[in-house]
Amino acid sequence: MSDRADTPVGTTRGEAAAVPEGDGHPVTLQDVRDAARRIAGAVHRTPVLRSRTLDALVGAEVFLKCENFQRIGAFKIRGAYNAVSRLSPEQRARGVAAFSSGNHAQALALAARELGSSAVIVMPEDAPSSKRDATVGYGAEIVTYDRYTGDREAIGARLAAERGLTLIPPYEHPDIIAGQGTAALELIEETGPLDALLTPIGGGGLMAGSATVATALVPGIRMIGVEPETGDDHHRSLAAGHRVAVPVPRTIADGQAIETPGELTFSINRRLLDSVALVSDDEIRAAMRFAFERLKIVTEPSGATGLAALLAGKVSSLPRRVGVVISGGNIGLPRFLEVMGGA
Amino acid sequence: MSDRADTPVGTTRGEAAAVPEGDGHPVTLQDVRDAARRIAGAVHRTPVLRSRTLDALVGAEVFLKCENFQRIGAFKIRGAYNAVSRLSPEQRARGVAAFSSGNHAQALALAARELGSSAVIVMPEDAPSSKRDATVGYGAEIVTYDRYTGDREAIGARLAAERGLTLIPPYEHPDIIAGQGTAALELIEETGPLDALLTPIGGGGLMAGSATVATALVPGIRMIGVEPETGDDHHRSLAAGHRVAVPVPRTIADGQAIETPGELTFSINRRLLDSVALVSDDEIRAAMRFAFERLKIVTEPSGATGLAALLAGKVSSLPRRVGVVISGGNIGLPRFLEVMGGA
Repeated sequence: MSDRADTPVGTTRGEAAAVPEGDGHPVTLQDVRDAARRIAGAVHRTPVLRSRTLDALVGAEVFLKCENFQRIGAFKIRGAYNAVSRLSPEQRARGVAAFSSGNHAQALALAARELGSSAVIVMPEDAPSSKRDATVGYGAEIVTYDRYTGDREAIGARLAAERGLTLIPPYEHPDIIAGQGTAALELIEETGPLDALLTPIGGGGLMAGSATVATALVPGIRMIGVEPETGDDHHRSLAAGHRVAVPVPRTIADGQAIETPGELTFSINRRLLDSVALVSDDEIRAAMRFAFERLKIVTEPSGATGLAALLAGKVSSLPRRVGVVISGGNIGLPRFLEVMGGA
Repeated sequence: MSDRADTPVGTTRGEAAAVPEGDGHPVTLQDVRDAARRIAGAVHRTPVLRSRTLDALVGAEVFLKCENFQRIGAFKIRGAYNAVSRLSPEQRARGVAAFSSGNHAQALALAARELGSSAVIVMPEDAPSSKRDATVGYGAEIVTYDRYTGDREAIGARLAAERGLTLIPPYEHPDIIAGQGTAALELIEETGPLDALLTPIGGGGLMAGSATVATALVPGIRMIGVEPETGDDHHRSLAAGHRVAVPVPRTIADGQAIETPGELTFSINRRLLDSVALVSDDEIRAAMRFAFERLKIVTEPSGATGLAALLAGKVSSLPRRVGVVISGGNIGLPRFLEVMGGA
């Protein structure tokens, strides 16, 4: 195995029987199927793209699940919509809240609006105006705090106390994880059994949902997570066997600039994940360029990490039929020009 | 009608009976259907994209036929494949040729390779290396000439004499026009009747094929051509009632930098076209940006002109159900950065 290849992390999938019922299985295939039913109609069934050029380059049949074409431009609407739809009428009437300046904020704002609720999004004062505008555009109320002096937890506690809002976290929630799993469910329904599935890992919700559904439908599937080199918290945690933190990651893949895996997501991923591939910012740029020039699609840096792992040869002994989740395409043109300017 | 709106050009569609048989009707719906049968399997049935944001912005239901996802990245493979597939075994054995540095060159190269023929492409010495490399990549032989001193007609005549090559023009050929019409055929098969169809006009082959099929399937449809402001040769010719030339157009829409309409394409378009909308380079840039940021798709400048006409309000009294052909997405990242740098 090349030293550039993905590192196996010793899945305990075969030992699942030893995991106490209800403890290691907070999300099941049935939960994902239920989520799929709930979100049907409100969330796009995104296309699966093929490319002869890509297949020839990497020597496999690659199926790209294009969540960049999803509503709000990323998979996050799946989990957010599922989570809000499970709230009681009273909870929905009071509203939901999240801490996020990213895709989860937009997803929750849209889900709340469409489900007759309202959303309050807590984001740092210096969040990019494009993200802020998009979130406001979906009807959310924005509450800002100073990233350096403010206490967002205190703000959240105050909001919850004053208004009785339900906090919807970006990944640490079974309904979020089940919702995110619907992308892999759709993919495998369309392609049939796959030999491997590559999914970006940020907080780990997309991977946890994907792995839950994929390993249940295709027991022999290789689940490969992809992280930026500098944001390898899942990779390190899986190797260590427990959650470890990494320094605040500096990477263009802002959706994966996470310091430590979620407790819930990690409990699922440590059991179902086979390996994690790490990609550099330059490899992500090359994948974004390939997506742009050859596939004619726009990917945000995090959205292109699975493709980057394939193109950079980071998956050892690549099997024949490989799925890749292109997780999102939210990047403004100015930021794209900045990121790709040297390309 | 606003002075910015598309200018009606007085279709003589209703007077078609006055056109001598076989003269004004060199391409029929049946020709397009036959072409669709010939290219099936070799050419993608491209997706039709919808966008709630776009619909809300322009106040219509817009159906985007995405030929940027076509093989070679543009609709041109449809006509080229149809034309080469209609050659005799002897003609195919001798090979085909084209003068082109654009999408037609790549299309003919690929069609020739897949149909057991070979292609010689005559292009200027100073053609972009990316276009040249792509054409070579599809297996074509490149013959260059000096754009300022060389005589490409003489080169063509010599090649034809020496090797017996069949010259396949980019638009002035019934088989090319019929092939290009298959995009509109697929679109209307998928969407049902449309109230209007916007199609970019370069040489006029895509429009001639689209109008042939669309007006036959939906007699009341409004056929709207789109040209760059500086390349308004079809617009002027339709107003004049005969083909007129414009100065060499300076526009980012290189696929539409044509000085005069084709004789054959114009004979069809003058009969079937309702109006032509003109768009500026800045309006094209804005449409490319919208496609990038909101639709997450890559369009070349010419490919975005239909969208530009809609977004810039260049279509008067826009009806409810509007089709738009996104004709191509072939733009390298460096050129994209150059074109969009000021965005």
